[in-house]
Amino acid sequence: MQIHLYQTKHTIGDFDAIRQYLESKTSDLQRPGVHLFPELFLTGYPLQDLVLQKTFIESYLEIRNWLDGFAKQFNDSLILLGGLNYHFDDNGLPRDIENCAFAIQSGKVEKAYTKVLLPNYDIFDEEKYFSPGTSACVLTYQNQKIGVLICEDMWVSSLHPVDPVKLLGDSCSDLDLVVNLSASPFHLGKEEKRLKRGKEISKGLGAPFAYCNRVGGEDEILFDGGSFIVNGENELWRGNLFHIDQISLDVPSFNGQKEEGKADIENTWESLFSPALDSQKPPRLPEMTDELCQLTLQALAFGIQEYAAKCGFKKFLVALSGGIDSALVTAIVRLSLKEGQSMEAVYMPGFFSAEESYNWSLELCKNLGIPFKVQPIKFLHRTISNDFKQNFGEELQGLSDENIQSRLRGALIYARSNQTGAMVLNTSNKSEIAVGYSTQYGDSVGALSVLGDLYKSEVFALSKYINKAHGNLIPDGIITRPPSAELRENQEDSQSLPAYERLDAMLEGILSYRMGLKELQGSGFQREELEKVYGLYKKSEYKRSQFCPIIKVKAKSFGFGYRIPICKK
Amino acid sequence: MQIHLYQTKHTIGDFDAIRQYLESKTSDLQRPGVHLFPELFLTGYPLQDLVLQKTFIESYLEIRNWLDGFAKQFNDSLILLGGLNYHFDDNGLPRDIENCAFAIQSGKVEKAYTKVLLPNYDIFDEEKYFSPGTSACVLTYQNQKIGVLICEDMWVSSLHPVDPVKLLGDSCSDLDLVVNLSASPFHLGKEEKRLKRGKEISKGLGAPFAYCNRVGGEDEILFDGGSFIVNGENELWRGNLFHIDQISLDVPSFNGQKEEGKADIENTWESLFSPALDSQKPPRLPEMTDELCQLTLQALAFGIQEYAAKCGFKKFLVALSGGIDSALVTAIVRLSLKEGQSMEAVYMPGFFSAEESYNWSLELCKNLGIPFKVQPIKFLHRTISNDFKQNFGEELQGLSDENIQSRLRGALIYARSNQTGAMVLNTSNKSEIAVGYSTQYGDSVGALSVLGDLYKSEVFALSKYINKAHGNLIPDGIITRPPSAELRENQEDSQSLPAYERLDAMLEGILSYRMGLKELQGSGFQREELEKVYGLYKKSEYKRSQFCPIIKVKAKSFGFGYRIPICKK
Repeated sequence: MQIHLYQTKHTIGDFDAIRQYLESKTSDLQRPGVHLFPELFLTGYPLQDLVLQKTFIESYLEIRNWLDGFAKQFNDSLILLGGLNYHFDDNGLPRDIENCAFAIQSGKVEKAYTKVLLPNYDIFDEEKYFSPGTSACVLTYQNQKIGVLICEDMWVSSLHPVDPVKLLGDSCSDLDLVVNLSASPFHLGKEEKRLKRGKEISKGLGAPFAYCNRVGGEDEILFDGGSFIVNGENELWRGNLFHIDQISLDVPSFNGQKEEGKADIENTWESLFSPALDSQKPPRLPEMTDELCQLTLQALAFGIQEYAAKCGFKKFLVALSGGIDSALVTAIVRLSLKEGQSMEAVYMPGFFSAEESYNWSLELCKNLGIPFKVQPIKFLHRTISNDFKQNFGEELQGLSDENIQSRLRGALIYARSNQTGAMVLNTSNKSEIAVGYSTQYGDSVGALSVLGDLYKSEVFALSKYINKAHGNLIPDGIITRPPSAELRENQEDSQSLPAYERLDAMLEGILSYRMGLKELQGSGFQREELEKVYGLYKKSEYKRSQFCPIIKVKAKSFGFGYRIPICKK
Repeated sequence: MQIHLYQTKHTIGDFDAIRQYLESKTSDLQRPGVHLFPELFLTGYPLQDLVLQKTFIESYLEIRNWLDGFAKQFNDSLILLGGLNYHFDDNGLPRDIENCAFAIQSGKVEKAYTKVLLPNYDIFDEEKYFSPGTSACVLTYQNQKIGVLICEDMWVSSLHPVDPVKLLGDSCSDLDLVVNLSASPFHLGKEEKRLKRGKEISKGLGAPFAYCNRVGGEDEILFDGGSFIVNGENELWRGNLFHIDQISLDVPSFNGQKEEGKADIENTWESLFSPALDSQKPPRLPEMTDELCQLTLQALAFGIQEYAAKCGFKKFLVALSGGIDSALVTAIVRLSLKEGQSMEAVYMPGFFSAEESYNWSLELCKNLGIPFKVQPIKFLHRTISNDFKQNFGEELQGLSDENIQSRLRGALIYARSNQTGAMVLNTSNKSEIAVGYSTQYGDSVGALSVLGDLYKSEVFALSKYINKAHGNLIPDGIITRPPSAELRENQEDSQSLPAYERLDAMLEGILSYRMGLKELQGSGFQREELEKVYGLYKKSEYKRSQFCPIIKVKAKSFGFGYRIPICKK
């Protein structure tokens, strides 16, 4: 059977672009075969409350109506694309909304299938907005039987009341093709799980399996594409990661052995969010192989570029400290730059900035070939301290003296951003965010956090990888110096926090493994350090609540899918 | 029948306090009768992801086990309290969690009822965490039949698949009492709706109705208590608003006419979120009567005090500008102060601050009897501008010159906060937040937003009410002067925005009435101003995404229940 797969990328709600895209594909779409587009192709994803906003609905109904006319020219093909199906109440308010697959066949658009499994965990809130379907969909095209699934429908979980794959198999024993229209967010390692599960389904249902995923960066969430077509164990095609892609492929019939498509725990969502179910093992971070580093960097660059494109930024701005986090962010942004884009790094030394911080920052910018600007804060810092003595009777000391430096830098980097129209990249890492080791409105400012889903130990690994893969861009001194906020004399992170490799393992245990303090103690951590770290983690919720979007590269991240009250015991 | 109702207030997860509270009530609880506690009394609400955290679960299971022992001394009473019922999978991960009512009777704790309707709209995500019950609960105590409901179960909505009130009536035709354990968030006007619905249920089921709600401020969400006991149309008791309360009442049998308990649209959640279904009428804000103003001020003071108590603040800090928003916030905080608490106002004049801003701010602080401190920013502002000319080749101009003033103030107010340990109150209003008329990390800083759910026109109304009710605390000049950010020469808000009363009506139409641009145009607004306002609203999502918690006093607020992507067309 002829399959045409369109791995697309459109901004949420950009109906003009979506319409123009379809028009530009008219002749492609007239070709016989099954044409596949992602889940919610007509709108983008995730939409959240947008689906309830009248202005959005009005625009959507326009493109939906337009589609009816557009469809008339397609009589020989079967086109499957994701969209919304609205039912309104007597007052014109949306009553039921279906996340569904529309089929264009014989010149007509018809709702073919409604997504059965609505993910409602972590970053997903689909039960809030959508009404689930209850039955399988088998379409007939050129005497071939095509089973249709949407995204989550392909996964098996003890939390899901039904198994749409089984539903499909039960409703038709001789399928010729199974397709899945997806809007599946990226995290490291996920594409392999999708492929493995795709093969399981293909063998289980005895038909080729075509998986069509969208591409895009939506605030913190990335869609990597990575579409594929498999026939049993055979990989017939894999789409690009983080790029649009398109394929036309003549897929042979399934001729392997049909196997019971039993999914193992690896393919359930519990496994995504509980990487180690055996709590006797100490939590650990995945080894940062070159391949994993490369994929991570690709994802981060994509996230930066997507956010910038959608918000209209062509310039980027990073506040360099001389430390590894800001150096890595600068390098990643630099490596992501496209034609017509530019960036600038600003170094803002204070009284406690080491001489080397300047030298290494300058060297970094030279290596990267980007402008290096210096805006000292010493005089402002001293002025404020004197002002405070005069106006409040106390000069700045301790925490107030540390934080004002960070906040001055926050204000100044944004003044520069206002001057040039550049997007400010946040430089915090996941370890710092987890324990609140940052200054609110200070080093925590930014439009988008590049490293906020990566622990400090992963920041080191990525930095070393960049130097290996791209020449020694990041000066060695930045990588080997002891981490410091340089906000007081001889400050080092290790005075306030456990060594990063222990800290990161503890945090991963708390956040991803969902381990309790007792379990963590059982896996080799000291009660005292655990309680300290857990205390810091708990009391810094208020900082995370005002944090910028963090590019999500892990299964469990801070951000929209992490919801903990600020006020609690 | 004897009813004992405990309108309680505990911090989320403060299991020690909850246990001590129960122990302190031992003799009360031994008295015969039905003892009622709120929904999720044993844990607090809303818990969000906490219910999935092992450390939280471990602590909860301890109090749950303790309760079994504690229960042994209660043989004559029936105690109903809300808690969680966990089911774990083979790996010890939570598999199903019920939001349920435990009954203590004859010395034993038993799960009596599982909440059937799990709200999953706006601020609610209960379907994410909880498994719903499916059947009604009728307990027998002293030969009396008691029907049990939990919070949302009392509401009827076309969005809910079942009606637990009907379920209860169908399962027992001669109930002697109906109780509802609630954790029902406050918004203006909601307590009257609850009472009206309570009477409907009482008449419909032919039994007295006792409603037990919790008290507390949880980040942005307030729980007002306002418990009540009704018998048909008779109000037997109404609990305090925003205070703990306790009552023991001998409630007579229902002797009125049993009436079909048909709920009208007023009592469905759609009505809460669509205040005007007739889109031909122009949107309008509710009239700020004295009663409404008083209730609003009470709610805001409660929200401030709850946040402060839970985060350990005893001092408060407001940045005064000479404008009405910061003046009103200062007055509200001052009026909320408890023994042992203090506050301070800091005025930070710049080049464009009017002479009157100083005079009126000083007068305000004198009227309120609070310290007034002045920390000018002119010199810092000029220094930065000169620095920028030297270091970047451009002095600050236009937006960059405006914003740096606001951000300097943000940094300075937090430096003062670090010195004194005071909580910084944010002074933005809902109109500004909606159109992004504020400086990120500048005037938008704060631990908690006091006015962020009130439009500018409501800020005026509240200010006038305060002057009327508490003497002329806010200088007239502050109320009558044209609003201005004072960030450039002769700046006035009206240069950038429509007059506030038109702006606020438009925003209410967009946010609460969920009107589209076409409808709004039909109700009397000009296309041009609508598009301008809608454009500002859409492009300021990034500012709202990093905003502090906003005390919620309306049905539709910015904050946790408002979820719109930043990047969109």
